[in-house]
Amino acid sequence: MAKRIGKRTLRLERRPGVVSYAAVVGGKEGAGPLKKGFDEVSTDSFFGQESWEKAETAMLSRCIDRCLQKAGGARPELILGGDLLNQCVSSAFAVRDRSAPYLGLYGACSTMAEGLGLAALLLDGGGLNRAMAFTGSHFCAAERQYRFPLEYGGQRTPSSQWTVTGAGAVLLAGEAESLEITHVTPGRVVDAGVPDANNMGAAMAPAALDTILAHFDDTGLDFADYDAVFTGDLGAIGHDILEDLLRREGLDPSLRLLDCGVLIYNRLTQDVHAGGSGCGCSASVLAGHILPAMERGVWRRVLFAGTGALMSPLTCQQGCSIPAVCHAVSIERRERA
Amino acid sequence: MAKRIGKRTLRLERRPGVVSYAAVVGGKEGAGPLKKGFDEVSTDSFFGQESWEKAETAMLSRCIDRCLQKAGGARPELILGGDLLNQCVSSAFAVRDRSAPYLGLYGACSTMAEGLGLAALLLDGGGLNRAMAFTGSHFCAAERQYRFPLEYGGQRTPSSQWTVTGAGAVLLAGEAESLEITHVTPGRVVDAGVPDANNMGAAMAPAALDTILAHFDDTGLDFADYDAVFTGDLGAIGHDILEDLLRREGLDPSLRLLDCGVLIYNRLTQDVHAGGSGCGCSASVLAGHILPAMERGVWRRVLFAGTGALMSPLTCQQGCSIPAVCHAVSIERRERA
Repeated sequence: MAKRIGKRTLRLERRPGVVSYAAVVGGKEGAGPLKKGFDEVSTDSFFGQESWEKAETAMLSRCIDRCLQKAGGARPELILGGDLLNQCVSSAFAVRDRSAPYLGLYGACSTMAEGLGLAALLLDGGGLNRAMAFTGSHFCAAERQYRFPLEYGGQRTPSSQWTVTGAGAVLLAGEAESLEITHVTPGRVVDAGVPDANNMGAAMAPAALDTILAHFDDTGLDFADYDAVFTGDLGAIGHDILEDLLRREGLDPSLRLLDCGVLIYNRLTQDVHAGGSGCGCSASVLAGHILPAMERGVWRRVLFAGTGALMSPLTCQQGCSIPAVCHAVSIERRERA
Repeated sequence: MAKRIGKRTLRLERRPGVVSYAAVVGGKEGAGPLKKGFDEVSTDSFFGQESWEKAETAMLSRCIDRCLQKAGGARPELILGGDLLNQCVSSAFAVRDRSAPYLGLYGACSTMAEGLGLAALLLDGGGLNRAMAFTGSHFCAAERQYRFPLEYGGQRTPSSQWTVTGAGAVLLAGEAESLEITHVTPGRVVDAGVPDANNMGAAMAPAALDTILAHFDDTGLDFADYDAVFTGDLGAIGHDILEDLLRREGLDPSLRLLDCGVLIYNRLTQDVHAGGSGCGCSASVLAGHILPAMERGVWRRVLFAGTGALMSPLTCQQGCSIPAVCHAVSIERRERA
């Protein structure tokens, strides 16, 4: 039974546990600094399909299957997922004709944190024993939907980010496991007035600030209490802005604040400009890097703060600024008795 | 604390109550058979804005505000919503800078049932006292996104449906109210192989069958136990198909099975072909017709089975069939002691 503490954080009394997780990524991600953690790397951008959108579905489906394989016989009673494609089709197609019911989410690049938090809350509330959260994105499918056909070879601004080709899935259970979800702080929609779709880090940083501050206020925790705080995909520019904003609030993020979009690529050699983005960014870094490292003992307590820019090409064309959201989920390694 | 009964139904022990609800619709809906129930009818399709997409945001925002006004001082601690526009922008913009956190959903036209069910489950699980679910759609914004620019004047097939310009919002509380949510049966993604985006009723009917059968199996209830079972937006063709499919399963839906898409327009005079559709269809019929009628005593127990077609123009262009989903929520009027 979850308990609300402070203004909007929910503390999970049952502390749902992480049963299994999987990450499936593309070739560029598989050549980056985190390559060792991913379950599968596909150097075929089509994942054996005839279109990049179908490739995204195949990647998500393989990621869900991998996560289920690693769970042994455990099966989810509910699946939560979403993606960036119009009408979230790659997720819906990836769970087509599976036996578990499906709730579709749209949190833009924060979808992994949204799904993980919701799954944990539903497990904590009783009734369900196992629930899965998954999401992903595909560079080629996103690029032609949001920006230009790849064949056009459009130039990218220095502040732009590279949509991660990758998927992540996490299966949670009501009972105790070595990694547990302890708190969920859902995010408000914050619009700082940034209109530039090629600078989404700047648009999302104020939402990340809002949720991290709320989480700290509500829980009494601080950067000193977390071994690491991961934002989803602010990229290098958004990350610097967030550090600045946090310091102005009197907080010292120093080396504890990390960003999945900064971690997933080598920005010096991989030509990704400000870093990675997309639903698959924080999802694949969570399942391919953060959770395995927590199990190995690298970090004991982590705040996973997924960030999302809630715009569309049309809202930008109509001159709107970019609202953003950040959902935060606390994960802790259970101490051995 | 929810309890899972049967294969996938969750019975809500706390029975979250309906605090308030509101429906805001366009001129065509306001001229239809259900006109008396809507809180606001806008004969200006732009809702005072400069584009139909901004109109959709304005309509959703007005609907949320109406629902909050009718709730007196009660405020949601969480808002769940979504819509049909690419990247669900009208919902995100409608909750921009509101104080409550927001979880974005994508259930296509089933979004109201998905949001209502999730809100009820989260309230039942403790921690939260009030949560709001909302969604909506706009004919003009949907038409130019999914089909043709309105100026083109494209002909519509007899099986096509008319996207409802309308929004619905419902505020739920953990404590008892006269209308209570008793069960939630989330839906699986069912693909019956229908490829025709102009016959979505046919694509969605098998998903509605799957969820209604699961709900009846899980709960032991039947059409005889419900005063009415409302599907979301199957329209006349999908409704007939579902009746047929149910009879083949040995069930007698007779006069108890109703469809929001059939109810909202007068098909003889309003030129809507097979009926209404869109997120706003079941949402505005729920908030503008079903809930008020339940409070007046017309029905005591209702199953609200929102239906959604999980396709996009692109999946249809790429030759994919149309997966669908149906989420069911049981609503009961509390008997006076």
